[in-house]
Amino acid sequence: MTHTAAYRRLSVEERRRQLINAALDLFAHHRPEDVSLDDVAAEAAVSRPLVYRYFPGGKQQLYEAALRSAANDLQQCFVQAEEGPLTQRLARGLDKYLAFVDEHDAGFKALLQGGSVVETSRTSAMVDEVRRDAAEQILKHLQVPKPGLKLGMMIRTWITAVEGASLIWLDEGKQPPLDELRDLLLDHFLATLAATAAGDEQTAEVARRALGLEDEDSPISDLIERVIAVVGEAWSVPAQD
Amino acid sequence: MTHTAAYRRLSVEERRRQLINAALDLFAHHRPEDVSLDDVAAEAAVSRPLVYRYFPGGKQQLYEAALRSAANDLQQCFVQAEEGPLTQRLARGLDKYLAFVDEHDAGFKALLQGGSVVETSRTSAMVDEVRRDAAEQILKHLQVPKPGLKLGMMIRTWITAVEGASLIWLDEGKQPPLDELRDLLLDHFLATLAATAAGDEQTAEVARRALGLEDEDSPISDLIERVIAVVGEAWSVPAQD
Repeated sequence: MTHTAAYRRLSVEERRRQLINAALDLFAHHRPEDVSLDDVAAEAAVSRPLVYRYFPGGKQQLYEAALRSAANDLQQCFVQAEEGPLTQRLARGLDKYLAFVDEHDAGFKALLQGGSVVETSRTSAMVDEVRRDAAEQILKHLQVPKPGLKLGMMIRTWITAVEGASLIWLDEGKQPPLDELRDLLLDHFLATLAATAAGDEQTAEVARRALGLEDEDSPISDLIERVIAVVGEAWSVPAQD
Repeated sequence: MTHTAAYRRLSVEERRRQLINAALDLFAHHRPEDVSLDDVAAEAAVSRPLVYRYFPGGKQQLYEAALRSAANDLQQCFVQAEEGPLTQRLARGLDKYLAFVDEHDAGFKALLQGGSVVETSRTSAMVDEVRRDAAEQILKHLQVPKPGLKLGMMIRTWITAVEGASLIWLDEGKQPPLDELRDLLLDHFLATLAATAAGDEQTAEVARRALGLEDEDSPISDLIERVIAVVGEAWSVPAQD
């Protein structure tokens, strides 16, 4: 039998990895309550007892291992070289994050919408860790090791908003297209950064430094022009010297 | 005994209400796993069997009834007369919402951070209903019965952001003060509305109409001036005619 032959060839770590990948694949596309240990065994083409040998805690343990693996992937999204325009770095990070959401749609939704049978304080802690890590990575790009209250809150709130928008995007049958969603979220980042900078000196410094790194064809200048076009029609925007 | 006397005087509906209020008070300030049926009985000054007579489903049923009651309160936040500047209506709604968060801190956190023992698909559905309802109320204030994809997504994402910021605010030991948090969230609304308007005609119309309703001392003009002060330093903002 093929899978017995495969079993002999794989090391313990490889076998573990294979089972986690099979579980991740299933949990990505089905609600946790719809995935059984038999499904995981079938997906990995191994026997049920073999799955239990590696994961004596059964489905819950497999779910948490798969989530750990997914969390590690997500934590890489905003890890990038700290050079070049900030908008390009954020766009790349968002592209990775949103591709993950796209590829793990049902699992992402079940995990974040709550009320799932496999949800525990451990799974919530992993979700929180991903959020905290994303915030830290973004603050690195902003060259701010210790954010003040307002800047820290703005970044963490934006991460919540990215998560929320991803869920809404799934609810809307994956509309608008991913690149439009990414641009929307990037605009939201820039807009809330500007609004926070307007009332916080640390954020203002960060915004100035980030603006200085942008190219001539930065999405920021485009956004500013378009915002002024809308706002200027109904409101007296003070002229710049 | 006082509570027996009280029992005779209360109608079924009044008794139910009294038990729900006692439960709500406990669940507001403690994690669900730390609240027992005995606690609810003691808080309402009644016997444990009496609690069971009204809530045969025990703690879970009481939790869900308390959550239902809290959800009804939250759904009132953005229900207001549809007149006057939009920023004033939003500020009033935010004040009510944030006062609720402040008064139900531990319960709000346990409910939204997930992994709680009392969380079910029913409790998640109630949380979702509150979000959807807030979105509908805000769209009413914007006079948009049927939002397009981008405007709808912007509003719903902002509601997620308000929720996320509330959790962060609780994590930060309730800092900054509530009125600063409210102003931050109001600025975020205006900033993301402007950014969305920059790429969506429906949102642009809404923004123009909303701007037209603002007073002379609107927080919007203040925000615009402060944003331009930050952005204009490092970036060439096109002058207005």
